Amino acid sequence: MRIGELSRRSGVPVPTIKYYVREGVLPAGTLTSPNQARYDDGHERRLRLIRALLDVGGLSLSAIAEVLEAVDDPGQPVHKVLGVAAGRIIPEESGKPEESGESGETDEAEEVEAAEGAGPESADAREEVAALLARRGWYVDADNAAARSLAGVLAALHRVGHGAFVELLDVYADAAEPVARADLDYVRRRVAREDLVESVVVGTVLGEAMFGALRRLAHVDASARAYGDPEEAGRWAGA
Amino acid sequence: MRIGELSRRSGVPVPTIKYYVREGVLPAGTLTSPNQARYDDGHERRLRLIRALLDVGGLSLSAIAEVLEAVDDPGQPVHKVLGVAAGRIIPEESGKPEESGESGETDEAEEVEAAEGAGPESADAREEVAALLARRGWYVDADNAAARSLAGVLAALHRVGHGAFVELLDVYADAAEPVARADLDYVRRRVAREDLVESVVVGTVLGEAMFGALRRLAHVDASARAYGDPEEAGRWAGA
Repeated sequence: MRIGELSRRSGVPVPTIKYYVREGVLPAGTLTSPNQARYDDGHERRLRLIRALLDVGGLSLSAIAEVLEAVDDPGQPVHKVLGVAAGRIIPEESGKPEESGESGETDEAEEVEAAEGAGPESADAREEVAALLARRGWYVDADNAAARSLAGVLAALHRVGHGAFVELLDVYADAAEPVARADLDYVRRRVAREDLVESVVVGTVLGEAMFGALRRLAHVDASARAYGDPEEAGRWAGA
Repeated sequence: MRIGELSRRSGVPVPTIKYYVREGVLPAGTLTSPNQARYDDGHERRLRLIRALLDVGGLSLSAIAEVLEAVDDPGQPVHKVLGVAAGRIIPEESGKPEESGESGETDEAEEVEAAEGAGPESADAREEVAALLARRGWYVDADNAAARSLAGVLAALHRVGHGAFVELLDVYADAAEPVARADLDYVRRRVAREDLVESVVVGTVLGEAMFGALRRLAHVDASARAYGDPEEAGRWAGA
């Protein structure tokens, strides 16, 4: 199909499609004449994936480019690709403040990072994560990216005076286990390498958004039950 | 304390502190002379909260400003403030792509929004959410912000050809219920209005990051158990 048809079918405007090609997240079409290219169903599918990761997953285009580059490289062993995918979709990396261009923010990033790595809260948080992994018997290296990410969250909770929230760790871990097992079962149903890798990306990113929305819905329900007035509680939690 | 001391204690550089004051997320200090201001523990605490919401929660400064404005307005009833807080921390709103300044993206935002609201996937997704709420007996208005957010995730899953992932909805909802109950118990321990509101903000934002990290850790463990080689599986999931 031509680029206009691809735009119509995907709902993505032509200039944006061209932008994605320039940024390397979407493969170029096949040239059929010096200034005309043909696109196929693979392009349409890829466009939908890019939009989902951007809009629902909140990933940056550079994170998406890195993940898709690994997905598209047939020379990469599957476990390597999955490592790249998991590493790029950690909120720490993708959720940086938009205002980081403001003067003073550049030096600050380094200072804060240094402070986070060295503060007493960070050492405590790393110990809490190590204890959690041991307590639950999880086969995870304490230097794993997600373990570092979790330590960052715990350190932040201590710093803002909400260290008591860390006591909920096991309630959260109990909930995370069946979810992770279901995710893995979903992924294992895939056979083709590209399908498998894509399902990990989709499941990790959209699965996180799905759980976040469900948790907030469950908050509304829990507060309705706790406070006895569903209507009031609905407003309470942002209905 | 003076601004230099506030900077040293919080780890936030002086120019950034001044920037936060200008942006309205941090109250100005009390002037003690025409060009000197005094800050107190409240400022230090607020700075740590801003950093946590920015760095770990991934909120934008404008979202933080809106939430904190409501927190700081004593004329606002608590349930209203909590509504604002819950509404501002929905990924849909804060997780917009950084690249949106690129030409073509402005028109596109509208087009895609129109497509999302009108497409067949969206109508199906809204029905799936309504069915979920009915099936679980949750006291939630189907027009709730989190319900709309969930419908957006489900529509995205259908669009990228992973509609089968929606079958995991109840596994996720089973996990979300005890987490939400524990969150609410945590919040209800607070008595003072400011504490209560802050704990909702912290719990919602940092709690989401905490669950995300735990889910990824549980993925590593689940794959280690499924594939039988912990070391291989560790690399598999980005260790």
